[in-house]
Amino acid sequence: MIAGGSMAERNATRRARTRSLNGLAKNRQIHPLDDDLRAEVNRELAAFLQAKRDEAAQIDPQFVAAVDSLSEFVLGGGKRLRPTFAWWGWRGAGGSPTDPQARAVLRAMSSLELIQACALVHDDLMDDSTTRRGAPTMHVEFAVRHRAAGWLGTPERFGAATALLLGDIALAWADDMLRGAGLWPDQLTRAYAVWQAMRTEVLAGQYLDVLTQACGDETPETALQIDRYKTAAYTVERPLHLGAAIAGANPALIHAYRCFGADIGVAFQLRDDLLGMFGDPRVTGKPAGDDLREGKRTLLLAYGLRAADEKRQTGAADVLRAAIGNPRVDADAVTEVRELLIELGAVAEVERRITTLTDSALRILHTTELEEPAGARLTELAAQATCRVH
Amino acid sequence: MIAGGSMAERNATRRARTRSLNGLAKNRQIHPLDDDLRAEVNRELAAFLQAKRDEAAQIDPQFVAAVDSLSEFVLGGGKRLRPTFAWWGWRGAGGSPTDPQARAVLRAMSSLELIQACALVHDDLMDDSTTRRGAPTMHVEFAVRHRAAGWLGTPERFGAATALLLGDIALAWADDMLRGAGLWPDQLTRAYAVWQAMRTEVLAGQYLDVLTQACGDETPETALQIDRYKTAAYTVERPLHLGAAIAGANPALIHAYRCFGADIGVAFQLRDDLLGMFGDPRVTGKPAGDDLREGKRTLLLAYGLRAADEKRQTGAADVLRAAIGNPRVDADAVTEVRELLIELGAVAEVERRITTLTDSALRILHTTELEEPAGARLTELAAQATCRVH
Repeated sequence: MIAGGSMAERNATRRARTRSLNGLAKNRQIHPLDDDLRAEVNRELAAFLQAKRDEAAQIDPQFVAAVDSLSEFVLGGGKRLRPTFAWWGWRGAGGSPTDPQARAVLRAMSSLELIQACALVHDDLMDDSTTRRGAPTMHVEFAVRHRAAGWLGTPERFGAATALLLGDIALAWADDMLRGAGLWPDQLTRAYAVWQAMRTEVLAGQYLDVLTQACGDETPETALQIDRYKTAAYTVERPLHLGAAIAGANPALIHAYRCFGADIGVAFQLRDDLLGMFGDPRVTGKPAGDDLREGKRTLLLAYGLRAADEKRQTGAADVLRAAIGNPRVDADAVTEVRELLIELGAVAEVERRITTLTDSALRILHTTELEEPAGARLTELAAQATCRVH
Repeated sequence: MIAGGSMAERNATRRARTRSLNGLAKNRQIHPLDDDLRAEVNRELAAFLQAKRDEAAQIDPQFVAAVDSLSEFVLGGGKRLRPTFAWWGWRGAGGSPTDPQARAVLRAMSSLELIQACALVHDDLMDDSTTRRGAPTMHVEFAVRHRAAGWLGTPERFGAATALLLGDIALAWADDMLRGAGLWPDQLTRAYAVWQAMRTEVLAGQYLDVLTQACGDETPETALQIDRYKTAAYTVERPLHLGAAIAGANPALIHAYRCFGADIGVAFQLRDDLLGMFGDPRVTGKPAGDDLREGKRTLLLAYGLRAADEKRQTGAADVLRAAIGNPRVDADAVTEVRELLIELGAVAEVERRITTLTDSALRILHTTELEEPAGARLTELAAQATCRVH
């Protein structure tokens, strides 16, 4: 993955390798919170949602059923990428799993998954996506229930209203979970500044995404601007920043984290774009070509269109433009678009961009003073985020 | 309005009248925060939204345009009922407009209007309402812009996505505004407990509303349960509680406020239901019969249906059931439903309920020790909320 040729880059590569080995060597004495972070995040989310369920029972039993649907969604899957970046951001800034506050810190970070639940449920609703993690999306699930019960009104409207409200509830409860995590007041104050910025950024990114799909902006610059806010800030940069802020990190470390996070975050999105077009639906849990049908203006498509225009391949450009945002695009059309994107060099260009971003991110990481094993784990996470198959 | 016949009730009436007069007598020395609360709330909201606009400008100029739409919506109207109840709840519990914290307290309360903005924008989207405050609703406005610009995709989907995201932003920013209001830490901690409960309650109420419309539950009990959470808790009970909590009020006062608020809040909703059916659209800003077309299960309709069934007026029952949730209901059909609701005694029954609730609320208020002029103002607010024409 690291293609650097300079002395500095080779040194960085060597340091990364040593760190990974150090990480492995320490496996035997690894703390449970470090060892199985995903399970620990799930445990915190389950406990929080159980408390909310009890609260819902004070209101109305029918509301409890809705809370159960949200809980199933939140606990039903997900890589827990955001709490994981936040945790290692905190660890790298000196946070320790043996600190009496470690559990509260983990709880605070787990709340990011509730913002994510809102983002996914509302995104699926806006895009009218039917499948998520191999299962029906929230609005589809509730439309199915409505139809099965033979209720009044249209199933689609009921599904949409329920998904909208459950997303709102997840957004509101994310905040409740952060606030109730048990952070010290100074930790919470520092965390909130990052949290607030992040929440605005992800919503801004989503808005720009919707607007760009509508006005048909085809420039790579716009695609990258959306990736920056909708994904990078929210998935890597701000989670790391959140962890660092809770630890009371110095500005230099925060700056390094943010640069690393912005680069890895965009690379993560670019990998996601490639998987959306070329990934195996059995592995990704989403139908291939969904982004295409929904009219997402990915960098991949922006590069493809630019190359077609520059090379005056009007036939190729027409095929791409006709497919973007066309809900009737079938498997054959997806195959044709795939082949064009390869032929036009767009796939190679995105792969190069992923490599460049990953390299620059790792260079930043390896010239930053970090508490181990955070450096090794962030190096691994960077690789997972940018080389994954799902 | 006060129909009580007992000695206690007559005394309560007398005390209320005396308080109102006291309130008037003090008009000359009234503090600006007490005097024109609505303007002060608007000023705080405008300042907060301007700061958010500056933040948005750091992200993307196109996002600024979206923030401007949200600001116009928030600042474009509204009775500011929730901050007003919160303010007088605080004043009644000993808060003073000359307190150095008074401005921070007002700012914290103004944040309720951002939750309300989210609730209105998302509600209009779920109900597909076209008009609010005499103007197009958010999703309609953005669909119109999309159509005018000749953009890609359907105007309706673009309008829905934008309204969904702007509602999310309002919900997130409500929280930012409360947190950044400048309350002391102990005030903020007390405020948050109420705020969190309220946010869950209003979302639960909205969910129950959607569910009831779908499954066609016709019982008055269900209609009242929705009114309790969707309106009363969120419009009167919790705002008063919030003010009392910030002031550090004693449990007895909080209990009294909550009882008063629950009653006045339900009465407020019942008045709203009557206005939705019988109000003048030029005054309400909403088309008459909108609730009916949207399938809202109001207490008014529940009483109407129950009376028709009990009196075995199957013709009347059929007309009502055919109209509820029927988007094709026209002016003539609305007139027919109005007449039926009067004939069946449903209107009189709702009016009686409003009177009973208002009486019991005022009885509670007048047996509670409150700092004046809060008692007088809450009495006036109760009258406005339950006797209004818009």
